Amino acid sequence: MIYVIGIGPGDKRLMTGEALQAIEDAEVIVGYVTYIKLIKELIKDKEVVKTGMRREIDRCQEAVDIALTGKKVAVVSSGDAGIYGMAGLVLELAEKSNPDLEVKVIPGITASIGAAAVLGAPIMHDFCHISLSDLMTPWEVIEKRLTHAAMADFVVCFYNPRSKGRANHLANAFQKMMEHKSGDTVVGIVKDVGRKEERKIITTMQGIDYELVDMTTMVIVGNKETYVKNGKMITPRGYSL
Amino acid sequence: MIYVIGIGPGDKRLMTGEALQAIEDAEVIVGYVTYIKLIKELIKDKEVVKTGMRREIDRCQEAVDIALTGKKVAVVSSGDAGIYGMAGLVLELAEKSNPDLEVKVIPGITASIGAAAVLGAPIMHDFCHISLSDLMTPWEVIEKRLTHAAMADFVVCFYNPRSKGRANHLANAFQKMMEHKSGDTVVGIVKDVGRKEERKIITTMQGIDYELVDMTTMVIVGNKETYVKNGKMITPRGYSL
Repeated sequence: MIYVIGIGPGDKRLMTGEALQAIEDAEVIVGYVTYIKLIKELIKDKEVVKTGMRREIDRCQEAVDIALTGKKVAVVSSGDAGIYGMAGLVLELAEKSNPDLEVKVIPGITASIGAAAVLGAPIMHDFCHISLSDLMTPWEVIEKRLTHAAMADFVVCFYNPRSKGRANHLANAFQKMMEHKSGDTVVGIVKDVGRKEERKIITTMQGIDYELVDMTTMVIVGNKETYVKNGKMITPRGYSL
Repeated sequence: MIYVIGIGPGDKRLMTGEALQAIEDAEVIVGYVTYIKLIKELIKDKEVVKTGMRREIDRCQEAVDIALTGKKVAVVSSGDAGIYGMAGLVLELAEKSNPDLEVKVIPGITASIGAAAVLGAPIMHDFCHISLSDLMTPWEVIEKRLTHAAMADFVVCFYNPRSKGRANHLANAFQKMMEHKSGDTVVGIVKDVGRKEERKIITTMQGIDYELVDMTTMVIVGNKETYVKNGKMITPRGYSL
């Protein structure tokens, strides 16, 4: 049995009861070292397999191999395991190794939802998630999605917005989108959602300081109706008030 | 003080610790009668204000009015309050009544995330949320978003997919999207996520039986790479296995 668990943005209080229960039930915990640290109080007496960054396949295969010995394994990732997380990979590898191996995906609070609550209500209307990581997706595909998202006036939540190796991705993405969106469009930035260092910034597409953004930052770009009032970023649903 | 709380899809185990804590802390609970029922065990000793459907503005204004008397109020909605929920409305009405009134949005598991976990891993790559309700959004705007989402090959999660008054909306949406998407595209349907009656169906855009879909149903349409294996709907992230 493998549980694939989204532990939310980092604060234990943002985990679901089902996630806590699955961690409790598991005998072995597998995860990237940063996520293991976030839940260390919950797994004191468990066997723990920590792995480094970009070792996703090895990590998930190891979880599958341990589960095949009959142990209950929990693979933990931040946010929701089904959104740019480990759920897909575990299901694919488990199926290849033994189609009878049971895999249960436990939902979690993904970064966009956590950040939205901090900002106010920026994703109250149609929105999309776009990852700016081109490790496995060609940049042309990402660019095409940026263009269509801008033309359709979706609110856009950026995952993996900017890293040392991809310092210009967010700036390039904004430039592309500003062919169809005003530079005054509201942008909400939340760093380290649900962690001690949490920090919120509300700015605009043309006013943003890209240096504020790194891999633990969620960037939400509003639609044409998004506005800021009393420090809150709000995308109206359309009620006549 | 007003908490705006997403209680998740309906199963108490899918609520976050923070949501449970906020409900515990509140003196008055305000919500649509169906959601109040879902959490009735948690609010036995509380003052409860139930309202009917389509009374969103009255319900949120009542919450604001009670909070202005000094009481701690919790407005509950299903899923996440910031996604087609009550967060935006409460923030807007609170700001109009008294900008000093504190509003705290508590994140929840939205229907797409709950349904995705049941289906496997359908939203592992870029996706969007589109509501098919045209009560407050002109159908032309919805149609434009459908077209761009299809052209960009986003996975699409449909909120408010079909009701008695909007019996043909999902069929019309699929027809529009099939101008750019294959009829063989995988479609996952989950009815009553996290509730006793939960039911999962995996089909295709051209094979769907629209009669299966109602307002408590989540419909997720895959991208070009989405496939079904071993009863699971999977959108690969792009790892070479």
